[in-house]
Amino acid sequence: MRAVRDPVPLLQALIRCRSVTPADDGAMAVLETALAALGFTCARLRFGEVENLFARRGTGSPHLCFAGHTDVVPAGDAAQWLADPFSGEIRDGLVMGRGATDMKGGIAAWIAAIASLPPDLPGTLSLLITGDEEGPALDGTVKVLDWMAAHGHTPDMCVVGEPTGKAVLGDTIKIGRRGSLNAMIVVHGVQGHSAYPQRADNPVHRLIRVLGRLTAAPLDAGSQWFEPSTLQVTSIDVGNAATNVIPASAMARLNIRFNDLHSSASLAARIRDALEQEGARHELEVNCSGESFLTQPGSFVEVLARATREATGVEPTLDTGGGTSDARFITHFCPVAELGAVGTTMHKVNEATPVEELHRLRDLYARVIHSLQHMESVS
Amino acid sequence: MRAVRDPVPLLQALIRCRSVTPADDGAMAVLETALAALGFTCARLRFGEVENLFARRGTGSPHLCFAGHTDVVPAGDAAQWLADPFSGEIRDGLVMGRGATDMKGGIAAWIAAIASLPPDLPGTLSLLITGDEEGPALDGTVKVLDWMAAHGHTPDMCVVGEPTGKAVLGDTIKIGRRGSLNAMIVVHGVQGHSAYPQRADNPVHRLIRVLGRLTAAPLDAGSQWFEPSTLQVTSIDVGNAATNVIPASAMARLNIRFNDLHSSASLAARIRDALEQEGARHELEVNCSGESFLTQPGSFVEVLARATREATGVEPTLDTGGGTSDARFITHFCPVAELGAVGTTMHKVNEATPVEELHRLRDLYARVIHSLQHMESVS
Repeated sequence: MRAVRDPVPLLQALIRCRSVTPADDGAMAVLETALAALGFTCARLRFGEVENLFARRGTGSPHLCFAGHTDVVPAGDAAQWLADPFSGEIRDGLVMGRGATDMKGGIAAWIAAIASLPPDLPGTLSLLITGDEEGPALDGTVKVLDWMAAHGHTPDMCVVGEPTGKAVLGDTIKIGRRGSLNAMIVVHGVQGHSAYPQRADNPVHRLIRVLGRLTAAPLDAGSQWFEPSTLQVTSIDVGNAATNVIPASAMARLNIRFNDLHSSASLAARIRDALEQEGARHELEVNCSGESFLTQPGSFVEVLARATREATGVEPTLDTGGGTSDARFITHFCPVAELGAVGTTMHKVNEATPVEELHRLRDLYARVIHSLQHMESVS
Repeated sequence: MRAVRDPVPLLQALIRCRSVTPADDGAMAVLETALAALGFTCARLRFGEVENLFARRGTGSPHLCFAGHTDVVPAGDAAQWLADPFSGEIRDGLVMGRGATDMKGGIAAWIAAIASLPPDLPGTLSLLITGDEEGPALDGTVKVLDWMAAHGHTPDMCVVGEPTGKAVLGDTIKIGRRGSLNAMIVVHGVQGHSAYPQRADNPVHRLIRVLGRLTAAPLDAGSQWFEPSTLQVTSIDVGNAATNVIPASAMARLNIRFNDLHSSASLAARIRDALEQEGARHELEVNCSGESFLTQPGSFVEVLARATREATGVEPTLDTGGGTSDARFITHFCPVAELGAVGTTMHKVNEATPVEELHRLRDLYARVIHSLQHMESVS
């Protein structure tokens, strides 16, 4: 069993599975074997094309869940890598490969941490591992959480193993994420000859005024735990090649990253209001890939931060920046925070994690597990 | 020679030539024959793919030129026509066919007018007929005018036979035209992730502000002889399908129709100023298809208007509306005005001119020619 206490061979075995989202390529089987050896009961959950895994050990309180994903983004041009992105080769003390930091490394370190702790921890440990985090995230964590709730497995708290480190291990714990919303606006006008605009109604001019309204001032100045929300017009497309024609309609796309001062509903209302103020006949399509969420710092976040400080000697910053993660789904069930490897190489060519950092991450996770398992009450 | 005094057979012969721009299909030969019979000396002038004709009779003063074009726009869906668009068929008293009003009808009426007048007019008559008015207008009137200047044929005044009538024959004389300018603006920014706009520079936002400046207020309120200038954004195209990406550049197209308060140079400066005020790294491409021009009402316009009133009983309005015509080139050589048939069916399916209107147009032109030929001095 000694090998399991070292996260490196487990990470290498995971990297060798070409689990480019939504493929699994044996990754879940690797984890199932490792977790079964540690006394976990595993349930393989297939939703659509996606492999998911729920593993649990113990029945006591509190129930601490670790959430992660084995799917990875594509390697890109493999020729630009120093080593085969699916070899898990060690070069100059770095485990190289797609997923080394995001986030097969985190999973391997957490399992190695459990292996390094005594098996008689007071509470329950579980792992929620999905193969659909980098993809549409429809057949992954969301469905496993529902299944867990239906089967009495809802945890008391959850650590997501995303690579949160900015410069050094332990410098950042994510306690929330901004929400993300995409909107498509189509403004309709009346087509006509550009020499006679009085007989037409130029939808481009209305759209310019609508977008002028929406971008004139920042959405907010930030909140206690969040940076200011941002609104970006990512495209405007009219596709009118005829210079003497006023087009019939004009389309714009917006991406909004929003903090806890907004919701997708309030933002949709804001866009609709701008359209109505400009009297624009319109279509508005709003897709929210995740509302903003915040785990208000309480005992869970406090214990997590203290354990991090003790293990790494670094004072972690409680952060809410960056894109979305599956924590946006977990927050509906229990307090959730994200803590993991240093993420500087994630999604890039030559993604890698130092062997030495993997060992420190295992030790950090071991202290986290130990501390959280001994909490009196979770808030 | 009696037949030439009736414009209808000549118009029918012209319509039967399928002279869809830049094709000639025998149209110039039809005119050459008719004009030679009236004592004109004809010069066929081919520039590039385009047939042009210059015809002259007499050497005296003043020299009155008639300018027109035999090329026509495409017929569109011939099945929607009541008669073959190139048959010149007469239906219910209408000569039907592409070019019946724009402007084979005008040419036929002018030639019939000359035929109906005594041949011993005091001055010089000429005709400048091109086959490149509906097309790019590069190998037509512009080049014939240069040739005329080089050969001592520059006229003292010119009537362009475009269909200017709005409701009834003689109601409108065009003494100028707005200019037309197309601009393409490309604004460059810095590409980035839409979640981190502070690390990027969204060119769409700058472009929205630039276009907001340009469209916020009218260019002017009109001038003595002109309607207000207009600026229309005809397209914006970014072509960025990725909602999480801030694009590197954004493109817009503008069409400006401008009066005598502006020039293409002053408008280009105005656009450049808006770009610079928004600090936008940019490319700006300006194409002017014609500066605005105005023939200031003097003796030429006065005599033309009086002859029109006398011939039709209608008080003509001096107008500068509509798109561009070849008069924008002629204005550099002599006073020019446009007077012709009622244009309601031009460029449409079932383009047609009443037989009766053609006869009245001939009579109008005859009085115009007679009056202008007897002017003491042209101003």
